[in-house]
Amino acid sequence: MIKNNRITSRDDDFAQWYTDIVKQAHLASYTSVKGCIVFEPYAYAIWENMQKVLDDKFKATGHENVYMPMFIPESLLKKEGEHVEGFAPEVAWVTHGGSNPLDEKLCVRPTSETLFCEYYSKVVNSYRDLPKLCNQWCSVVRWEKNTRPFLRTREFLWQEGHTIHETAEEAEKETYQMLNIYKDLFENYLAIPVVVGKKTEKEKFAGAEYTLTIEALMYDGISLQSATSHYFGQKFSKPFDVKFTDRNNQLSYAYQTSWGTTSRMIGAVIMVHGDDNGLVLPPRIAPKQAVIVTIKNTDEVLNTAKSLEDELKQAGVRVFTDNSDKSAGFKFAEHEMKGVPIRVEIGPRDLAEGKVVLARRDTNEKVTCDLKEVKDKVITLLDDIHNNMFDTAKKRNESKTYVCKTFEEAREIINTKPGFIKAMWCGDQECELKMKELRGMKSRCIPFEEEHLSDTCVVCGKKAKHMVYWGIQY
Amino acid sequence: MIKNNRITSRDDDFAQWYTDIVKQAHLASYTSVKGCIVFEPYAYAIWENMQKVLDDKFKATGHENVYMPMFIPESLLKKEGEHVEGFAPEVAWVTHGGSNPLDEKLCVRPTSETLFCEYYSKVVNSYRDLPKLCNQWCSVVRWEKNTRPFLRTREFLWQEGHTIHETAEEAEKETYQMLNIYKDLFENYLAIPVVVGKKTEKEKFAGAEYTLTIEALMYDGISLQSATSHYFGQKFSKPFDVKFTDRNNQLSYAYQTSWGTTSRMIGAVIMVHGDDNGLVLPPRIAPKQAVIVTIKNTDEVLNTAKSLEDELKQAGVRVFTDNSDKSAGFKFAEHEMKGVPIRVEIGPRDLAEGKVVLARRDTNEKVTCDLKEVKDKVITLLDDIHNNMFDTAKKRNESKTYVCKTFEEAREIINTKPGFIKAMWCGDQECELKMKELRGMKSRCIPFEEEHLSDTCVVCGKKAKHMVYWGIQY
Repeated sequence: MIKNNRITSRDDDFAQWYTDIVKQAHLASYTSVKGCIVFEPYAYAIWENMQKVLDDKFKATGHENVYMPMFIPESLLKKEGEHVEGFAPEVAWVTHGGSNPLDEKLCVRPTSETLFCEYYSKVVNSYRDLPKLCNQWCSVVRWEKNTRPFLRTREFLWQEGHTIHETAEEAEKETYQMLNIYKDLFENYLAIPVVVGKKTEKEKFAGAEYTLTIEALMYDGISLQSATSHYFGQKFSKPFDVKFTDRNNQLSYAYQTSWGTTSRMIGAVIMVHGDDNGLVLPPRIAPKQAVIVTIKNTDEVLNTAKSLEDELKQAGVRVFTDNSDKSAGFKFAEHEMKGVPIRVEIGPRDLAEGKVVLARRDTNEKVTCDLKEVKDKVITLLDDIHNNMFDTAKKRNESKTYVCKTFEEAREIINTKPGFIKAMWCGDQECELKMKELRGMKSRCIPFEEEHLSDTCVVCGKKAKHMVYWGIQY
Repeated sequence: MIKNNRITSRDDDFAQWYTDIVKQAHLASYTSVKGCIVFEPYAYAIWENMQKVLDDKFKATGHENVYMPMFIPESLLKKEGEHVEGFAPEVAWVTHGGSNPLDEKLCVRPTSETLFCEYYSKVVNSYRDLPKLCNQWCSVVRWEKNTRPFLRTREFLWQEGHTIHETAEEAEKETYQMLNIYKDLFENYLAIPVVVGKKTEKEKFAGAEYTLTIEALMYDGISLQSATSHYFGQKFSKPFDVKFTDRNNQLSYAYQTSWGTTSRMIGAVIMVHGDDNGLVLPPRIAPKQAVIVTIKNTDEVLNTAKSLEDELKQAGVRVFTDNSDKSAGFKFAEHEMKGVPIRVEIGPRDLAEGKVVLARRDTNEKVTCDLKEVKDKVITLLDDIHNNMFDTAKKRNESKTYVCKTFEEAREIINTKPGFIKAMWCGDQECELKMKELRGMKSRCIPFEEEHLSDTCVVCGKKAKHMVYWGIQY
């Protein structure tokens, strides 16, 4: 394999390595608006593949897409108290239309609970109108101070599902169902293992009864909140007057959920799988799953490349050919940087023996393969690569997950080898705040599958209520 | 057919009829932000089908999707003089992030030429980097005074393609190619015949060398500018410094195009095809192409409905079953309102003879059909319906297109029976402005296929240069 010297090593300077990949793999470009990026074609194609997976799953579970305005009047944002408190400090305000000041300022949506509630309050009358299962794909704006491509930008792409239901039970079921869809996306398409659980009161969404989350661990041991699903109960439906006539002919307020994930998933894919040669893309969301590289452009090589490309396309593989006149080494490095899962090398010498070389991006292994077997081998390899990428990340997560029984242990770990810390917690917010003194570490979640690590809280030593995953976050 | 009395007749009050359909077919809901609507699930599903058709065609012609920020700094918007003049009066301005005033105000994109130019200026160095063929799906904002669902809203959905090329010739070819894709979408998917041509200098896009357009005529004889494709030459690339080293090793400015169409297409579909019973959807973009309605829910009827639904789905028809316990008449009216192209009625009496009834939405015709033949019949019928809808609209357009040789003729026509007016024009803007005195009529375009109607301008009587389509516009 050609060593790629264009980017910083991830072990030397992870942040610079990330920035190098974003630039060299042509994922994002900076703009003259601070904190806003251009999603370049390659990143957007990855996003479209993620969208497709989710959108199909949303529709298969009965959800419909809608589009709400991007503007929210100040008075509407203010209707639910915790919600406005959570978001008002970081919204962008539109104050003028053309040269005229507006009667009421409008914020650019940071999230759309308020708009969905306003809509539902108009169209729902009876329990027969329920559930309403809507989703929207759009961008939202949060005026963040510190930004980083994909991970934290002032405008980002996302989807937000908003549903209302007749009963609490049904809404809670939805909340869990949608979290599972995200887990499925992460593990079975992005090859990223996640911890699933519930946020603490302190870390839940502004206005939710509770928030479920999937949490992933990056290569550098920093966690990333990757998708969330919120149960609102009637906390929004009451102030927004979303009510319906129930089966007993009584007026009732609807039970509500919302759930979302964002373009930061692209950042997660970079930071979980990438290496010192660039991106490593999970095959199921890679815009191109295989590249056929011609080593020398003889007629025979070119013809073989063409017929192999046709054969693989026929089989449903997203494949393209690079028969440019650049050197083989240069071409290899290019497609490695872009993380194409499989490279098929066709050169005159191998071809004389009816063979080509298959190189996999995840392990850099090369195998020689009979031309006749390429199609089957590529298809098998795509699954193998996915599984290996998932296993590698999972093993790394395990090696970076530490059990801490005392505050001092937690301090030692987080200062020397960041990762997930598993520790018992009494349930008091004070102890949560105390943990934050350790490099800003936060509770990631109370996992659905709690372990009994000890009887006492890692901070105060009082009786423990829960096992919690903790970590520094992006 | 059950007469639907819930909506105003389109011949009595076209504007009210339109509003009634938007509401009754659950296409859009108003919001507390003036001029912004909710795209309800049914409208959004129509939009997704339109998107799919276009997106496939864009990709098949080598275009890639990207995403640009929604904000444009004032200084960036101002770089091209005509452009800022055209848009600044109608943009929304963001002046605050959180509680802090911004250093420079940002407009919410009314269109993204400026952002694409900024991006291209960074990533293009050599002719080898060209062409760049990008498109983006997003919403844009224009602070309009008078708004109407889908036709003119302050925020609307659209796509905007922005390409840069090595030569003028190649860019111009692109400009025409993309217009043809829009024509294809309108005629072969939306069943809406269009006039294709070039905008006059007065009506071209702010900053373009020239603008190509497709123009459609609504049921009421009012025209709708339906999609445009602009050739910019180097008008943006110079102020934005989008230059490259050409094949002669000289620095050259890139040649540019942009092209777009919007969610007003949904309005066009309503206003071209709808009738007094509601929407009539063109089969190729209808979210549901056929509905199976059970007349009476006997076991046999329900089982037949189920197996027919499976069979049709298998054949690729977007079909669903309405076996609710509402009356058959009520169900018919519902699906007529929503414009479902084909209704399959299954009742015990017909079924005893192995038959069902097929009703087509466009003509209201009903035919009895052998159960065994339903699948083939439905597939044929979908094409028949498309063709009939197109022909009906085309005939209506022809009957509403008038040749006028004098200004008085034009006045008479536009006051008594609006439609397209074909008339000769000397090329002077003064005469164009004079025509505008007739109910605000504007030039729609100089068609690609001009006819020689007379030697003299319809307004001033001087020598004519062009034949022009004129009309009142939405």
